[in-house]
Amino acid sequence: MTTEAPDHWVLTLSCPDRPGIVHAVAGVLAANGGNITESQQFGDAGTGLFFMRVQVESAATEADLESALTEVATEFSMTWSLDRVGRPVRTVVMVSTAAHCLNDLLFREREGRLPIQVVAVVSNHTELAPMAQFYGVPFHHIPVTRDTKPAAERALLDLVDELDAELVVMARYMQILSDDLCRALDGRIINIHHSFLPSFKGARPYAQAHDRGVKLIGATAHYATASLDEGPIIEQDVERVTHADDAGELVAIGQDVERRVLARAVRWHAEHRVLIDGHRTVVFR
Amino acid sequence: MTTEAPDHWVLTLSCPDRPGIVHAVAGVLAANGGNITESQQFGDAGTGLFFMRVQVESAATEADLESALTEVATEFSMTWSLDRVGRPVRTVVMVSTAAHCLNDLLFREREGRLPIQVVAVVSNHTELAPMAQFYGVPFHHIPVTRDTKPAAERALLDLVDELDAELVVMARYMQILSDDLCRALDGRIINIHHSFLPSFKGARPYAQAHDRGVKLIGATAHYATASLDEGPIIEQDVERVTHADDAGELVAIGQDVERRVLARAVRWHAEHRVLIDGHRTVVFR
Amino acid sequence: MTTEAPDHWVLTLSCPDRPGIVHAVAGVLAANGGNITESQQFGDAGTGLFFMRVQVESAATEADLESALTEVATEFSMTWSLDRVGRPVRTVVMVSTAAHCLNDLLFREREGRLPIQVVAVVSNHTELAPMAQFYGVPFHHIPVTRDTKPAAERALLDLVDELDAELVVMARYMQILSDDLCRALDGRIINIHHSFLPSFKGARPYAQAHDRGVKLIGATAHYATASLDEGPIIEQDVERVTHADDAGELVAIGQDVERRVLARAVRWHAEHRVLIDGHRTVVFR
Amino acid sequence: MTTEAPDHWVLTLSCPDRPGIVHAVAGVLAANGGNITESQQFGDAGTGLFFMRVQVESAATEADLESALTEVATEFSMTWSLDRVGRPVRTVVMVSTAAHCLNDLLFREREGRLPIQVVAVVSNHTELAPMAQFYGVPFHHIPVTRDTKPAAERALLDLVDELDAELVVMARYMQILSDDLCRALDGRIINIHHSFLPSFKGARPYAQAHDRGVKLIGATAHYATASLDEGPIIEQDVERVTHADDAGELVAIGQDVERRVLARAVRWHAEHRVLIDGHRTVVFR
Repeated sequence: MTTEAPDHWVLTLSCPDRPGIVHAVAGVLAANGGNITESQQFGDAGTGLFFMRVQVESAATEADLESALTEVATEFSMTWSLDRVGRPVRTVVMVSTAAHCLNDLLFREREGRLPIQVVAVVSNHTELAPMAQFYGVPFHHIPVTRDTKPAAERALLDLVDELDAELVVMARYMQILSDDLCRALDGRIINIHHSFLPSFKGARPYAQAHDRGVKLIGATAHYATASLDEGPIIEQDVERVTHADDAGELVAIGQDVERRVLARAVRWHAEHRVLIDGHRTVVFR
Repeated sequence: MTTEAPDHWVLTLSCPDRPGIVHAVAGVLAANGGNITESQQFGDAGTGLFFMRVQVESAATEADLESALTEVATEFSMTWSLDRVGRPVRTVVMVSTAAHCLNDLLFREREGRLPIQVVAVVSNHTELAPMAQFYGVPFHHIPVTRDTKPAAERALLDLVDELDAELVVMARYMQILSDDLCRALDGRIINIHHSFLPSFKGARPYAQAHDRGVKLIGATAHYATASLDEGPIIEQDVERVTHADDAGELVAIGQDVERRVLARAVRWHAEHRVLIDGHRTVVFR
Repeated sequence: MTTEAPDHWVLTLSCPDRPGIVHAVAGVLAANGGNITESQQFGDAGTGLFFMRVQVESAATEADLESALTEVATEFSMTWSLDRVGRPVRTVVMVSTAAHCLNDLLFREREGRLPIQVVAVVSNHTELAPMAQFYGVPFHHIPVTRDTKPAAERALLDLVDELDAELVVMARYMQILSDDLCRALDGRIINIHHSFLPSFKGARPYAQAHDRGVKLIGATAHYATASLDEGPIIEQDVERVTHADDAGELVAIGQDVERRVLARAVRWHAEHRVLIDGHRTVVFR
Repeated sequence: MTTEAPDHWVLTLSCPDRPGIVHAVAGVLAANGGNITESQQFGDAGTGLFFMRVQVESAATEADLESALTEVATEFSMTWSLDRVGRPVRTVVMVSTAAHCLNDLLFREREGRLPIQVVAVVSNHTELAPMAQFYGVPFHHIPVTRDTKPAAERALLDLVDELDAELVVMARYMQILSDDLCRALDGRIINIHHSFLPSFKGARPYAQAHDRGVKLIGATAHYATASLDEGPIIEQDVERVTHADDAGELVAIGQDVERRVLARAVRWHAEHRVLIDGHRTVVFR
């Protein structure tokens, strides 16, 4: 007879708020020998929804845990997921020619700072193939023209399916996705927009920012949805600029903000810290 | 027969970590008709302690809740407290002549931004009496010399007792407290130190900071303990400075940091968000 | 014969950019025994304008300095001003009922942290009269209704003239000014807008921000112009918020940002650090 | 006959403060057809030194400019330098095994965001050779043991000489340099220390920071001098941490701060924005 070291699980759930949820969930976990190491709950008075994230150590099998959780989830009409803490999330990164976000994501993965496994880099250009190669990630060139866009999107979706990718990251991919593609990847596609949304939607946000004379520029990571630049915001940050910074310098300064905002959003998503609450997000940091 | 609107409670607890704590606590709350609106848990692998803060709506009486919680607290050897959400904490503020922290605390209390009730301002000087008076708070002048220090500290403690004060805030009170006083107020006396501890302990930290040529200055709110400037840190923040800021300007810039760091620490303490974990703190924000 | 300690002057200027400006200005100052203690220059390649701020110690009389500067200013078509470093700028503060910005400005003035002299507090309400009185500043109640608005604005302008006020600060004054009033006070009226412009223009910005689910909220200090919320931005800052902060909490958090952004903008204006460059500003910090 | 486009120069200088410096320098520049595009001056009342940085467009030859500047420099006992704006500074980067700072510097150079040319990566280990190779930079393995340290330092200095390197960056090079080496590279060797100096000097600063329970961690870029961790500070920054971050997570969070603090310090040095003022720095940003 051997004693197994317990596994470390992360459970997330949301459901209509009512008394007894925490007790019921904690009961299921206790009955499976679970020891809670970290947990957060939040009830949104506006939407009437309750959100919960639990990290728990348990020696129970995944099947036993899932079966027990299914029961309580049914009772409370929960949307829920169970995963191993730290399991790398299979991720496709989409880029055009700008390298700063890609470099940051691949470097962090390599250093063990980001619980993702980049299974493919997809681009409508070829400039970033060597960088993908340096980090040992397959590079897929899928060119896009007005005429080939539907075919290109089908190729992307096929690749996502084939690779069992769980997450798609638009790391400064300079193409607008079709509504159908956004819907097909609903809740698992993250975009980085190079402005502090809702300021400066659309094209050339740094030129707009310079023209308006703002004193801070920002970046916004959000789930991509059919409404351009309107998806649920995961993370935002800003950097101070001055009158002396021209539009070109805003681009350079902004790239630093973009890459760190995107890296945080991807990490929190991959750690199951982001729950969607209508067109807003709950982020259990 | 009438239906009472449920009260809103905040429960905090810490105890040796082991499986079943959350389930047991949630069970007590559920049995008393409780609905959890916000909660956080944390297990410190270093000290082996478990920390929990729960906000819960319940129509049960305080006596029933306390009785039920006492039982589970005994079982798990918990240190715990139960309070009404938003109840103003009776607070004594100690000052010397610098007004910036006092003005900030009194103004925030008046605006309903800080769940405290300042029941006395105590000072070894008289300059700030008019400000206390403007905000309708009794002002107590307790002068301190080397010879009268023990008597002055006794007078302070008597006042704290007499006023049922739960919290003492040293809002730039420029006297070093005796070890006995620190012990008597253990865990309920907050000091603001005008540096980013552990840098620049002791006197004249801004002069030290200017001499060292630092590029950021900071402030630290901590529980006062017998070891000067070594108590558990509650909150810290910094502000950018440049070569052009002389020591006097560092003082001015620093006062902004001091007052906002102190205000946050007092708010979190008064909202029962700060739990002491050895010589560190757990802050459930 | 006595030796006078030299006066400390601040000179600001802007003019079409061309070679020789700094040399000419420095020459005038040197000819008047001036010693430059701090200076900054900036050429805006976009507008073709050159901006300069100089702090200089000189024993020359104001008349001599002005006469010498007038000559060079004419040669280079300069807009310029000369003032004593640290001279308090005569300021009218306009408020409605929110106290946080007023309290901050009056407190900073009292502490010697802001080179302004508030010569009047003007309000369309009476709630803040006691605060003005505590700080020893005359309070003027000028009610505004749709019908009396033109008369109220005339009363304000008369007061500004009568008091020789150089600056008007809208410290959360909840009335929209007429275009005529904005023009009459062009370049010397500062407004604090409670959002990170250009996000959330217009009314109820915190409700808008909460609805959009942003992760940072901000405030913007700008010169008021005929185009609402479109005047040249002087300063902006942000604070982090979370999903757990409802619209009411955003207001509370936002007030901290508003008051510090407004205080910085007023200080920089009063120190002659802000120069207008079209619909943008140059800020020599 | 052709008209040359003017060159863009950056002049920095420091000297004992006295009237007439700016006028004299501006005069030399004007006499050489110079148009000042950006300039900053600062007089340090504490040390009595005056500092100046000027960017100027001029069609004069480098020899003419230097000759004219030498004259005025002699008159005012100036320390000065003249360089072309944007000329890449020849840089040697020293590393051990941590890759985050090296990756950041090489990536920024490649993107044209950092006016340096890394002419060699030197390491006492071999792990980072592939990264240097990917970016096309020669990698030099110079092992160090207690016995070989003097020889290793000589090899480094020989390499610096041979490559005409102007700057050495210790990008998490985990060896303590000898006093002689620090002196040989005085003012042109930058170190990144992984704490907010003067907090947590010496080894294992993140473990120290976790033990003390600080709420912010930081990093400090400074010129390396014979006094360990005491050299003039160029830049510092911090990041917020919580009770839930263990020492390992502080390391991860800290690496983000380290790399951006070091990148800023290197950029400002390479742009001639950093002037040494005793054991402090003047940074004209």
